Amino acid sequence: MTARIVHDNYGKSRVRLLKVDRRTERHEIQNLTINIALEGDFDAIHTEGDNSLCLPTDTMKNTVYALAGQKQEVEPVEVFGGRLAAHFLKNNEQVSRVVIDLVEHGWKRMKFDGDEHDHSFVRGSNEKRIAKIAATRDGVTVESGVEDLIVLKTTRSAFVGFIKDEYTTLPEATERIFSTAIKAVWRYTSADEASDDVFSSIRKTILKVFAEHDSLSVQHTLYAMGEAVLNEFPEVDEVAFSLPNIHCLPIDMTKFGQQNDNRIFVPTDEPHGLIEARLAR
Amino acid sequence: MTARIVHDNYGKSRVRLLKVDRRTERHEIQNLTINIALEGDFDAIHTEGDNSLCLPTDTMKNTVYALAGQKQEVEPVEVFGGRLAAHFLKNNEQVSRVVIDLVEHGWKRMKFDGDEHDHSFVRGSNEKRIAKIAATRDGVTVESGVEDLIVLKTTRSAFVGFIKDEYTTLPEATERIFSTAIKAVWRYTSADEASDDVFSSIRKTILKVFAEHDSLSVQHTLYAMGEAVLNEFPEVDEVAFSLPNIHCLPIDMTKFGQQNDNRIFVPTDEPHGLIEARLAR
Amino acid sequence: MTARIVHDNYGKSRVRLLKVDRRTERHEIQNLTINIALEGDFDAIHTEGDNSLCLPTDTMKNTVYALAGQKQEVEPVEVFGGRLAAHFLKNNEQVSRVVIDLVEHGWKRMKFDGDEHDHSFVRGSNEKRIAKIAATRDGVTVESGVEDLIVLKTTRSAFVGFIKDEYTTLPEATERIFSTAIKAVWRYTSADEASDDVFSSIRKTILKVFAEHDSLSVQHTLYAMGEAVLNEFPEVDEVAFSLPNIHCLPIDMTKFGQQNDNRIFVPTDEPHGLIEARLAR
Amino acid sequence: MTARIVHDNYGKSRVRLLKVDRRTERHEIQNLTINIALEGDFDAIHTEGDNSLCLPTDTMKNTVYALAGQKQEVEPVEVFGGRLAAHFLKNNEQVSRVVIDLVEHGWKRMKFDGDEHDHSFVRGSNEKRIAKIAATRDGVTVESGVEDLIVLKTTRSAFVGFIKDEYTTLPEATERIFSTAIKAVWRYTSADEASDDVFSSIRKTILKVFAEHDSLSVQHTLYAMGEAVLNEFPEVDEVAFSLPNIHCLPIDMTKFGQQNDNRIFVPTDEPHGLIEARLAR
Repeated sequence: MTARIVHDNYGKSRVRLLKVDRRTERHEIQNLTINIALEGDFDAIHTEGDNSLCLPTDTMKNTVYALAGQKQEVEPVEVFGGRLAAHFLKNNEQVSRVVIDLVEHGWKRMKFDGDEHDHSFVRGSNEKRIAKIAATRDGVTVESGVEDLIVLKTTRSAFVGFIKDEYTTLPEATERIFSTAIKAVWRYTSADEASDDVFSSIRKTILKVFAEHDSLSVQHTLYAMGEAVLNEFPEVDEVAFSLPNIHCLPIDMTKFGQQNDNRIFVPTDEPHGLIEARLAR
Repeated sequence: MTARIVHDNYGKSRVRLLKVDRRTERHEIQNLTINIALEGDFDAIHTEGDNSLCLPTDTMKNTVYALAGQKQEVEPVEVFGGRLAAHFLKNNEQVSRVVIDLVEHGWKRMKFDGDEHDHSFVRGSNEKRIAKIAATRDGVTVESGVEDLIVLKTTRSAFVGFIKDEYTTLPEATERIFSTAIKAVWRYTSADEASDDVFSSIRKTILKVFAEHDSLSVQHTLYAMGEAVLNEFPEVDEVAFSLPNIHCLPIDMTKFGQQNDNRIFVPTDEPHGLIEARLAR
Repeated sequence: MTARIVHDNYGKSRVRLLKVDRRTERHEIQNLTINIALEGDFDAIHTEGDNSLCLPTDTMKNTVYALAGQKQEVEPVEVFGGRLAAHFLKNNEQVSRVVIDLVEHGWKRMKFDGDEHDHSFVRGSNEKRIAKIAATRDGVTVESGVEDLIVLKTTRSAFVGFIKDEYTTLPEATERIFSTAIKAVWRYTSADEASDDVFSSIRKTILKVFAEHDSLSVQHTLYAMGEAVLNEFPEVDEVAFSLPNIHCLPIDMTKFGQQNDNRIFVPTDEPHGLIEARLAR
Repeated sequence: MTARIVHDNYGKSRVRLLKVDRRTERHEIQNLTINIALEGDFDAIHTEGDNSLCLPTDTMKNTVYALAGQKQEVEPVEVFGGRLAAHFLKNNEQVSRVVIDLVEHGWKRMKFDGDEHDHSFVRGSNEKRIAKIAATRDGVTVESGVEDLIVLKTTRSAFVGFIKDEYTTLPEATERIFSTAIKAVWRYTSADEASDDVFSSIRKTILKVFAEHDSLSVQHTLYAMGEAVLNEFPEVDEVAFSLPNIHCLPIDMTKFGQQNDNRIFVPTDEPHGLIEARLAR
């Protein structure tokens, strides 16, 4: 008996890059982590140990550095990812599909007395700008998004009217803390629509809805955020959210001779609710 | 405009459980982390903030503890996960699909002078036994597997004959360290086939092939492991592997006045190759 | 034989707190993680299992919440830590020394079109404001600082003129990336000197020296930062730094047919240099 | 004003090593992570940027590989650490003190049908064997120990008779789960006393006391473990423990219509008690 390969892919993960644009005294930096995965005609690698159609993952890593070096300027992640995908497709006939996942880590320019510094930077939050480029010889799909965008609001969040059964102990809450680590990924109608400006605008729309929405559940706010993105950005045709509920549990202060007035909480990591949905027009 | 919900699910993640069987003086323990995700008729939760069909994730957590308490004995993860899935389907008409992910953390009984201790345990490795139960009103699919099963062999691994291009710097290697963190997940032909015995036998088959195979690439050994599982276990109809290549890079000892004799390596976490495939009959 | 207790301490670690000041519509939040350690007359707990002088660590946790609730306003970490230390000393005769370690996690108020939002926040960077209060019946020592303040400069850093021996392979570098995760802790001349303003000013001084210094080594810049703190802040009598060297290794681009022009780097976590010093007047 | 250096040290951290002994077909492996820190005459490095007495941390890393390569056999960590310390002292007059911290990661030989495999290994638990070598020109101190040795017992642990105050909510427990991650470090009376055999025997003594002790508190068992080590091992003159209390909280099953019979627990990571003591003769 010979086993059948239903699906396979291989590549290099966690390729780290720091690129500096030194063309002027005001340096720019870009800090990425990149995963590359190839699909294609790899059966003989598996079944025969024949590597004649195997591009080593080490070469994929080198290709990241070589292609980054070809451009002096810092490119949007979607553009750099697109160049990488095109390179692998063009130079490897055996490859039918390339997926490039990029994570951009934020750095902020230092500022002293209102002046931005030319060459010194402070690491930003753990929030990540992410992009996924999936390319075949028939076309390219580009998704962009944010991950680990941690937010919290201290009012305008409730959770009532839910199912009660024999195992229910959760009280209804008309006023609760709402905190989550937003992962949002949107797909562009075409690869050309991706840009730094659209990214920033979508991110801002999501934050604004989070802040202003009268939330009746995590699902309710998720939907409102997604609807706003689809309403305001015709260049997006689908948006997906993954929202862990970072529960901030109110401490029962009556045990300590105080009133419960919704001021003292213990934030917890586990267990946590996880709410996910994908929305389209 | 109203956005359309393409897909959604919600549930509780990272529910931790320690269960003790105290029926005899020789105690048994089971230590699990469980994720629960429900799919169903949840549109009104999203669009109206109407929670009347919303089972709170807090109740899901309570249900884990309640159902665990109903049985004195330690159950195989697949059995406990199956009971959980059945409970949510039975008691929630609005739910169409339940996915239960279980991770079992290993503990070993302490042993002194050959005698196993009745009630004291040492934590095992980070290797995890995992199971996924996906249940609808039409049927149940059970997958089992291992994760973070870290292995290493010091010989009988090579990587030669690969593509060379303008960015290749990797030398061919006829003798290299092969180390990986095996994630393997197999699907049973029917939910009833899952058992502790079959789990242990499949795990052993995978390890044995890893140890004995004359590896010409990670893919080559992946395929051999998968083929062996499908050959030996008719109760399995599909098996998938995800194998990060934990590169152990040989140090160039000639810089230090010594020979390169393949004895001194630096193990690295990043970047790493990642080889994945799904095999079936 | 009875063993002698040379030193002991016990307490509660990783007590998490989220406090909300709701006195006006513009809410303030404070997010802390707190470790408490007590020293004192605990010999009988160890040797006899006599807990009559043992304050449970669970009660320490409760005390954090009770004392936080007593004040409507958000206090500087040093003030809150001082209240906790004083409480444990006052109410527990058997305790001779209390050490409170506090970590404050940064949150930034959301801002839309220039307007700060009343009740919505975004998590800041992983940079932590830290404080350590060590109190006995004879006095209180207060140390404050920053941890995981990750910085990077793209020029004005060199490392030349070092020792060469039989195992040297590092080339001299007149122009290198300098990146580190600053941990700096300073001790105040008296507990009353600690304040949010002094904290911010010292942090700014450290960043400014990092940005402007013509660095000849990590040690050289460490010393310059410490000297500036001691020169500018008479309320500080000692400052200590722990600076991991986050090596950003230049890629050899000549292998890819390009020039080495100091633009493409791989940032690494391990191995890393670690430079530490404590400076005083 | 010039700042005074109260203390300083520098070195390389997280140097990873995999060493293979290939002298017979039955290969041996050793997997270490090593931190090196030097103290000495480094003032000019800090104050002048004069690196003429600075041994680069990159060279320290190379020295680890060079010295590891000099021996075909796998050495006990204390022996290898001692060689490293002696090398740095001998070749660097400006260095007055060397501290080498070594962590050994466990690997188990694979075994099939009772036969140990010659060249294939499975990663053991996260338990680490640790050693610290502190050497000056006047002598060498060797400490050895274990870290992250996670243990759990399901009976023979109680906590009663403790202080009750206004913030107490913890009930007394005559039967509780006791779980901790043992960190134990012992100092040998002389560097020559360290060996693999003594290490294994001390580790076994600690585990046996943990398993057999009728624990009235974590402190009570800590002391019993330390006393046993000092009683049984004259080659040890001091032993220190750091024991986080991995609380396993009993679930209130009465809420779910069941009895509370001490079988269902939620293990937690935070907050956690932390009990520490250093014992000597």
